[in-house]
Amino acid sequence: MRANLDQSKEALKVRVAARNAALVNPTAGLAPGFVQGNLIVLPAEEAAEFQRFCLRNPKPCPIIGMSDPGNPNLPELGEDLDIRTDIPRYRVWKNGEIVEEPTDVKSWWRDDLVAFVIGCSFSFEEALIADGIIPRHIACGSNVPMFRTNVPTNATGRFHGPLVVSMRPLKPVDAIRAVQITSRFPSVHGAPVHIGLPEEIGILDISKPDYGDPVSMNRGELPTFWACGVTPQSVVQAAKLDFAITHWPGCMLVTDVRNSSLST
Amino acid sequence: MRANLDQSKEALKVRVAARNAALVNPTAGLAPGFVQGNLIVLPAEEAAEFQRFCLRNPKPCPIIGMSDPGNPNLPELGEDLDIRTDIPRYRVWKNGEIVEEPTDVKSWWRDDLVAFVIGCSFSFEEALIADGIIPRHIACGSNVPMFRTNVPTNATGRFHGPLVVSMRPLKPVDAIRAVQITSRFPSVHGAPVHIGLPEEIGILDISKPDYGDPVSMNRGELPTFWACGVTPQSVVQAAKLDFAITHWPGCMLVTDVRNSSLST
Repeated sequence: MRANLDQSKEALKVRVAARNAALVNPTAGLAPGFVQGNLIVLPAEEAAEFQRFCLRNPKPCPIIGMSDPGNPNLPELGEDLDIRTDIPRYRVWKNGEIVEEPTDVKSWWRDDLVAFVIGCSFSFEEALIADGIIPRHIACGSNVPMFRTNVPTNATGRFHGPLVVSMRPLKPVDAIRAVQITSRFPSVHGAPVHIGLPEEIGILDISKPDYGDPVSMNRGELPTFWACGVTPQSVVQAAKLDFAITHWPGCMLVTDVRNSSLST
Repeated sequence: MRANLDQSKEALKVRVAARNAALVNPTAGLAPGFVQGNLIVLPAEEAAEFQRFCLRNPKPCPIIGMSDPGNPNLPELGEDLDIRTDIPRYRVWKNGEIVEEPTDVKSWWRDDLVAFVIGCSFSFEEALIADGIIPRHIACGSNVPMFRTNVPTNATGRFHGPLVVSMRPLKPVDAIRAVQITSRFPSVHGAPVHIGLPEEIGILDISKPDYGDPVSMNRGELPTFWACGVTPQSVVQAAKLDFAITHWPGCMLVTDVRNSSLST
């Protein structure tokens, strides 16, 4: 993974717009070609344990960047990047509950906080679209539907909770091609984790996502599920963590890293 | 693709047993590690057109070997290989109908016949098993179930007819892994052509295959379909060809080519 500083002004523009609160909406489709990331910020005393949790749950929690304690910059992910301001909307959590959804977290920042940036499926969606497979939520201009499953993550210390998945309805032939394409992107969730039988992973109503927006399912399509970077938010809830900051689902960190650089 | 002559005596032994009619049964599990192939033999005047048909239908009809007209040897596929005798059981076709199912075709051989050997899913099944995914028909010791679909092949001159597929019931997570594994074997049908919705490809009763044996489907499994090298037999029938020789489904040509050499 490598930042392409001289070609990445589009991503920087998005971050600056978020910083100035000129952008407070989901980032899908912005700065095409550049990696977007999920955020979770934790106190340093919990960070090492969370890093082990991610190592044991690489499908939902592939770490693509991590800050030093108290330092809001992640230079490997972007020029002049400030994690406290550069995401359009955040969630602040106390005891596993959302207490605020601000457009910056400067007033919440502390010297002991560590930011984790986790890969996002937006990166592989670009490769799907290039192959003619248009995810339904993109065609509809909505947020991808996401579901809490009955599949537990691999618990590590205080961190535990259900796997969250994103869902795209696909014709079987497209689902097969999507497995091939997304397998080439292991650091942004890789291949699907499930196809076709939502009840087997505890999803009883495909029209009622836990995060994001519902999408229509057509005859001849299979719901196709990928591990999702919103999983840490279900972990914050399940583990009732004292304090955490995350992004607001859909409002991602836009980085200077190229999607294509993540492909094997 | 490369014959490994000095390590391939197991394959030669199978061919010699077939030649002597000591072996008249399906070849699944024989000479593990070596490529098995489907056979279709046509008069030279039709061979060029059939070769174009295969080029346009690479998923069901990947050619892994082809004889010169009238020559029953295919040295690139095996030492001392005689295509007239080295398959356990054949089918002889006239006007698209089976007229004999002999254990050799020496009496039917002509100076103008060309043999095509077409890749077979047995090669990728070995890679599935190595990954812990045991196809149901192998666990049951039966022949893989095969179905004529409503998906037309790409017609070429006189050659046309429905795609034939083989079916393996798999848990979704195994179906996803199977897409990854079999994608590495493009010359033996590669990735599946369909998952999960048999009625969409014209298969109305999954318990009644057109070739091979039925297998049980368990709750939580998806029928997973690969293009099948028996497709040329459905083409012989559909096109009512004057004359053709094929293998008897399941009784394959065992070659000296290693399965692993076919992997990308």
